[in-house]
Amino acid sequence: MKIKTKDIVETKIVCLYNETNPLVMDCGVSLSPIDVAYETYGELNSEGTNAIVVCHALTGSAHAAGYSSDNPKSIGWWDSFIGEGKPFDTKKYFIISSNFLGGCYGTTGSSSINPKTGKPYGLTFPQMTVRDMVRVQKALIDHLGVKKLKTVIGGSLGGMQVLEWALMYPEVVESIIPIATAAQHSPWAIGLNDVARQAIMNDPNWRNGNYYDFGQPEKGFALARQIAMLSYRSEKEFQLRFARERQKVNGKESTYRFDNSNLFQIESYLHYQGKKLVQRFDANTYLYITKVMDLHDIAFQRGPIDQVLLSIKIPTLSIGIDSDILYPATEQQAIARLISRATYQQITSPYGHDAFLIEFIQMETLVRKFLVELE
Amino acid sequence: MKIKTKDIVETKIVCLYNETNPLVMDCGVSLSPIDVAYETYGELNSEGTNAIVVCHALTGSAHAAGYSSDNPKSIGWWDSFIGEGKPFDTKKYFIISSNFLGGCYGTTGSSSINPKTGKPYGLTFPQMTVRDMVRVQKALIDHLGVKKLKTVIGGSLGGMQVLEWALMYPEVVESIIPIATAAQHSPWAIGLNDVARQAIMNDPNWRNGNYYDFGQPEKGFALARQIAMLSYRSEKEFQLRFARERQKVNGKESTYRFDNSNLFQIESYLHYQGKKLVQRFDANTYLYITKVMDLHDIAFQRGPIDQVLLSIKIPTLSIGIDSDILYPATEQQAIARLISRATYQQITSPYGHDAFLIEFIQMETLVRKFLVELE
Repeated sequence: MKIKTKDIVETKIVCLYNETNPLVMDCGVSLSPIDVAYETYGELNSEGTNAIVVCHALTGSAHAAGYSSDNPKSIGWWDSFIGEGKPFDTKKYFIISSNFLGGCYGTTGSSSINPKTGKPYGLTFPQMTVRDMVRVQKALIDHLGVKKLKTVIGGSLGGMQVLEWALMYPEVVESIIPIATAAQHSPWAIGLNDVARQAIMNDPNWRNGNYYDFGQPEKGFALARQIAMLSYRSEKEFQLRFARERQKVNGKESTYRFDNSNLFQIESYLHYQGKKLVQRFDANTYLYITKVMDLHDIAFQRGPIDQVLLSIKIPTLSIGIDSDILYPATEQQAIARLISRATYQQITSPYGHDAFLIEFIQMETLVRKFLVELE
Repeated sequence: MKIKTKDIVETKIVCLYNETNPLVMDCGVSLSPIDVAYETYGELNSEGTNAIVVCHALTGSAHAAGYSSDNPKSIGWWDSFIGEGKPFDTKKYFIISSNFLGGCYGTTGSSSINPKTGKPYGLTFPQMTVRDMVRVQKALIDHLGVKKLKTVIGGSLGGMQVLEWALMYPEVVESIIPIATAAQHSPWAIGLNDVARQAIMNDPNWRNGNYYDFGQPEKGFALARQIAMLSYRSEKEFQLRFARERQKVNGKESTYRFDNSNLFQIESYLHYQGKKLVQRFDANTYLYITKVMDLHDIAFQRGPIDQVLLSIKIPTLSIGIDSDILYPATEQQAIARLISRATYQQITSPYGHDAFLIEFIQMETLVRKFLVELE
């Protein structure tokens, strides 16, 4: 496939806060400077009203679409959604995707250098929240001259940002599409994040977060990812994909050996997924972001959850996934039930929570229809 | 409450194998001697035909009923099921409960002293299987003079033993009650066990299994338990029980602190559960037993799974739990579908997989009815 010039995108970095104008965070800390990594696709109209914000999930980046100018092999995580003729048509919309506050893909976070010390923040980075992330995104769209957002979309932690966008900036946001997310992080999901964090912090190579001179806590971090993977997919998918297949040893399946040379395929798959994340992500950042999710609660300091949802008055497309065990479809239904202009739609998939990154055809149909009805 | 003398039970130990008569295990190893810890309740009739075998789950012991003679505070794990007037009425039945092969409650396993070295077996213990466990249980009932088993009952790993009993000794077993179990361990459940094992083995205090002179790999083992706990209960139960409650710090809930003094209740609960298991169980044993579950596959070396289930001809009460995510009710339904004389019954509970140890009233009704129909 030949890559067209227009499909090559550059991740830009802008510094949005400084000492006289710091970000006042939920935890009370005033943080500056803050670099924000972002990409845009399409052109902003002169009124600044054709913009869409795409919010990424736990380990995502600003690179949502196109081919990266740094690495032409790197295609955006939601490329099938964004581009000419795609649901977020770049001939019509100006789409903004940024790495959220506390991330490790260009935006300031735990692994960034603290200009005051010349060393990575590590655990001295203030704990951010979903609301802090959205504050930074708002500063970014202001910087870009955006006046109105046609819609804000995201799945999982991305969906949490979507809900906060609607609540924090109702004068800017015209509609939202929260997918496979929660209005309040459930205790089961908190528990999963907690054991993943323990896996990292139990690793002696974590060194209380001061590992930057030595290398990542590889084993613990890989384990954290594997624990999470079990909640991202479904039992059904693993059954269809791996069943009880074994890795072959010297081309033969040896059934009663118990060492690592004769793993079940599911074990081998998990180990691989763990190693893969360690190569591309930062362990401290993972601790901070999972905590962001646990703290997510749209009712916090706003009143009863039902009242808070009722206060959202804009068109809302709430999308659930039938096989999602992490954010069960019932949570998306509950969101839709209380928002007066909300529609609930369900994706049928064996892929569990990850279906929002996989079931493109079902998602596309829903989102296209929603956007048409908005016009 | 006053403890009646008849309710005090002693865990007995019998050595069932010796060098001239070792246990030939599935892995090919001939193992001896093997101590077996067991308890019995009620009296065996002269024909040896009124016996019931109760099979325990992962971290269980032989102490299924009554008060332990060692520790009068220790009540059996299924005491509500076994005793005078209870579903397994000791006036009528002779009930046998034993710690399975490879356990750490009296039966020979990884933490036992290898008589040849004078040191714990540790990782030199041969990997046992569910079938090996059942072989040892069969040797025990032979030793006790039992000729027929009215029924064999167990949940989870206990249910796996139940299925193997029916397949390995059809001439002895008259009925079975498998609960919240699987005919083949699913890849999702294997994945969960794998990450739990990694949590233990990642702990430097595990010392490749040679920790007996130094103390357990506490952090890693506690983490393994916490990972498992998330699959034993349901999201719904955690929501009802903990919601997003925090631990109070100095009597006050401080919402935006992120250290361990301000955990969510669910986190605190998991940490407590982890620590509790470390105090009463052995880490290497946990590695071995979870592997037993992963290897569980009634079809292994027997042919297609459907044919194997069809070959079970005895009355079967297959019990599923509606909120079980570890062994979903669909797995119990699949078991019942192919066994010609099987009935499927479902327990409604928010407790998830653990409901088989909690929902006594629902279980009792089902089991009493099944036993009456057997007569």
